Amino acid sequence: MGTHSFQAPKGTRDFYPSDLAVRRHIEAAWRSASIDCGFDEVDGPTFEHLELYTAKSGESIVNELFSFRRAGGENDYALRPEFTPTLARMIAARGGALPVPVKWFAIPSMFRAERPQRGRLREFYQWNIDIAGVEGAPHDVDVIACGILALERLGLTPRDVQVRVSHRVAIARMLAALGVAADKTADAMTLLDRRDKLKPDEFALRAGALGLSADALARFDVAARATQPLAAALADLAAKIGISADEFAALDDVRAAAARVGILEWMTVDVGIVRGLAYYTGTVFEFHEISGAERALAGGGRYDGLVELFGGPKMPACGLGMGDVVLANALRDRKLLPDDGATLLPRPDVFVISAGGDLADAELPKLVMTLRRAGLHVRTSAKATRNVGKLLGDAGKARARLAVILGAELADGQIAVKDLDAGTQRVAALAEILATPRTLRLP
Amino acid sequence: MGTHSFQAPKGTRDFYPSDLAVRRHIEAAWRSASIDCGFDEVDGPTFEHLELYTAKSGESIVNELFSFRRAGGENDYALRPEFTPTLARMIAARGGALPVPVKWFAIPSMFRAERPQRGRLREFYQWNIDIAGVEGAPHDVDVIACGILALERLGLTPRDVQVRVSHRVAIARMLAALGVAADKTADAMTLLDRRDKLKPDEFALRAGALGLSADALARFDVAARATQPLAAALADLAAKIGISADEFAALDDVRAAAARVGILEWMTVDVGIVRGLAYYTGTVFEFHEISGAERALAGGGRYDGLVELFGGPKMPACGLGMGDVVLANALRDRKLLPDDGATLLPRPDVFVISAGGDLADAELPKLVMTLRRAGLHVRTSAKATRNVGKLLGDAGKARARLAVILGAELADGQIAVKDLDAGTQRVAALAEILATPRTLRLP
Repeated sequence: MGTHSFQAPKGTRDFYPSDLAVRRHIEAAWRSASIDCGFDEVDGPTFEHLELYTAKSGESIVNELFSFRRAGGENDYALRPEFTPTLARMIAARGGALPVPVKWFAIPSMFRAERPQRGRLREFYQWNIDIAGVEGAPHDVDVIACGILALERLGLTPRDVQVRVSHRVAIARMLAALGVAADKTADAMTLLDRRDKLKPDEFALRAGALGLSADALARFDVAARATQPLAAALADLAAKIGISADEFAALDDVRAAAARVGILEWMTVDVGIVRGLAYYTGTVFEFHEISGAERALAGGGRYDGLVELFGGPKMPACGLGMGDVVLANALRDRKLLPDDGATLLPRPDVFVISAGGDLADAELPKLVMTLRRAGLHVRTSAKATRNVGKLLGDAGKARARLAVILGAELADGQIAVKDLDAGTQRVAALAEILATPRTLRLP
Repeated sequence: MGTHSFQAPKGTRDFYPSDLAVRRHIEAAWRSASIDCGFDEVDGPTFEHLELYTAKSGESIVNELFSFRRAGGENDYALRPEFTPTLARMIAARGGALPVPVKWFAIPSMFRAERPQRGRLREFYQWNIDIAGVEGAPHDVDVIACGILALERLGLTPRDVQVRVSHRVAIARMLAALGVAADKTADAMTLLDRRDKLKPDEFALRAGALGLSADALARFDVAARATQPLAAALADLAAKIGISADEFAALDDVRAAAARVGILEWMTVDVGIVRGLAYYTGTVFEFHEISGAERALAGGGRYDGLVELFGGPKMPACGLGMGDVVLANALRDRKLLPDDGATLLPRPDVFVISAGGDLADAELPKLVMTLRRAGLHVRTSAKATRNVGKLLGDAGKARARLAVILGAELADGQIAVKDLDAGTQRVAALAEILATPRTLRLP
């Protein structure tokens, strides 16, 4: 057996208890926000038929697939690199039978066979929320607000993260107003999308190929980097770029909806947000740390043609994806993961200790199981020692709330109950605890 | 795009909301039982290096692997068919640094490339609990009791499921007492393991090859089908087989430990339980429906050499695995999944309705978000209708506890709050609800 078989495959993770506690902490925020916002949870297979991805997805994803064929089998499969094709396939399978709007969320594992780097792994977890079957800015904002709600529950604020929002229709109208010809619109959008990845001279070179006047080129350059709080008047932004505020009407609808919900302070207009994938058709957004130094925490938007593209009915839709890796980094950087997960582990309600003697050793397993059957988180020691001081130390290390000690008083049917947070101790009747075990549960 | 790309791959499942509610219901029982019993949750990658499985696992697993290699890559991988190799690898990676005992649980997805049939799929979810670093029947029973606790929480009783238990050492001593030669012990165990799969004449043929006297052969046949409640004296069972009760000493330790914990009524001695995999060394058990008609719900036992086999330190261990597919079938057969999952979906706390008018439509999004921010599960309608009767019907269909109606009284700052379970209605001040939204949460 090669030595590397003792390691997790490159770009994947072993989740030891405190690591998994971090993942569960993030997932709990995702799940509770989703449910509170009226989304129903769904899931699909971990792998799909390869052609679900190759036939319609962008090249960037196809190149990153883990694909395989079973020895002797006829079908090619791929580990899912994103959830949307599965979602579209599931909607398609039910045809028109699903009540509209379909509001679904999922927290699947996903796989990308690219080079692992900070914020990007080969296996990761991604929260997906989607609303299908309805159109309009209020639904786009419903998706964004649910993403914000999850971040709020993890302790993040608008001072940590901003949702940068744009709108494909507004961008197209802006480009037309700047004089970009219809056949150059796609090039111009790609350029906006890549503005942070291109060096200034390369950006200038490509912008030059758009066929704009020197004045329009200067205004395109302003637009590419123009951001302002969504709370501010869009007319200001339009004036800066030198276009009519009317071109931003679609974005103004998003603004009005966000204002009604009360999430304006989380949001920034960023005309340069386009989203790489070809399938977005309306509102587009990315969640970014305020510093802008890391990868996006989340991204999404409206993709009205997508469900149909994957074989489903004609159905407008809007969605968001948020991965666990960048988010965990952001929380860690802001000290929002105390002890790196250790204190996120569930605290035992009771740590049961035998102080020795046949009676105590005989009674302990029954007491432990009775408390567990009552829904208490109960730990005990596997050590041979009956030194109560040492065992209380173990109870403290386990972060137990109470210690129950089976000692000499057991001959009279009595046990000691020690509140490890308060440092107080009382005596209780074992029979009473066995009869009403939930009285040992601290609030 | 081929038509089958619109379907989930054979042997995998799409989880629509009520399907996933069933899975989450089962997982919640597994997780809460694990935590209450003092296990910490872990997880590993969905795929591992292929050789982690091929080098040491039994052939039966190797033949069922989904394996793959990244185009242009150097490594062979396989989707995990079981969790134990990952567990052993993770323990090995931390060497002696982990506090003993290691009590871990996991609920990973697993993959077997075999032909799908009732109770057996190509992708399924399996609960694993393991205790490593300690020996003795009390720890074996700790594992079994945790499995029972999860079943109890799902509504199952000892009249539904029995844990059939045996012990490798007891079986070996029984076989020796029956006159099975040391070099035939493995054959005899394999025969016991396959007793339900072989036809009677084939069983007799193979038993004949064990080199036993006619009398011993008859007693071997009795042993192969000998079961009795674990609560009964093992001496009775030994007498039936015609051996000394001493040969069952190891099983008697399990009996004593189970009696102390209080789970005897759940347990049956079944000498014919061996467990196919070669790696078990002591206590072995399977959870079966009382009818015995279905596959085992769970299986496990002590495998003291396994962690070392996968590159870890010398470490005794005992574990259990329980899959979701057979368990869900058992629950469904017993009507323990009401409405096949639909009523397991989370109930909305509040359904907010606008009765129409600019003020109501304007106030609704803010109220909804405020309630959600307070942790309430809030739904609303995407329909254009402002017919309160129809919308109350939708609230009922959504199984909401309360409906909040923004109607004409809103001009005076008032809203109607309707308790949909009790059928009562009251008027409240919107400002008060916005200030203390949690008052709308029913217990």
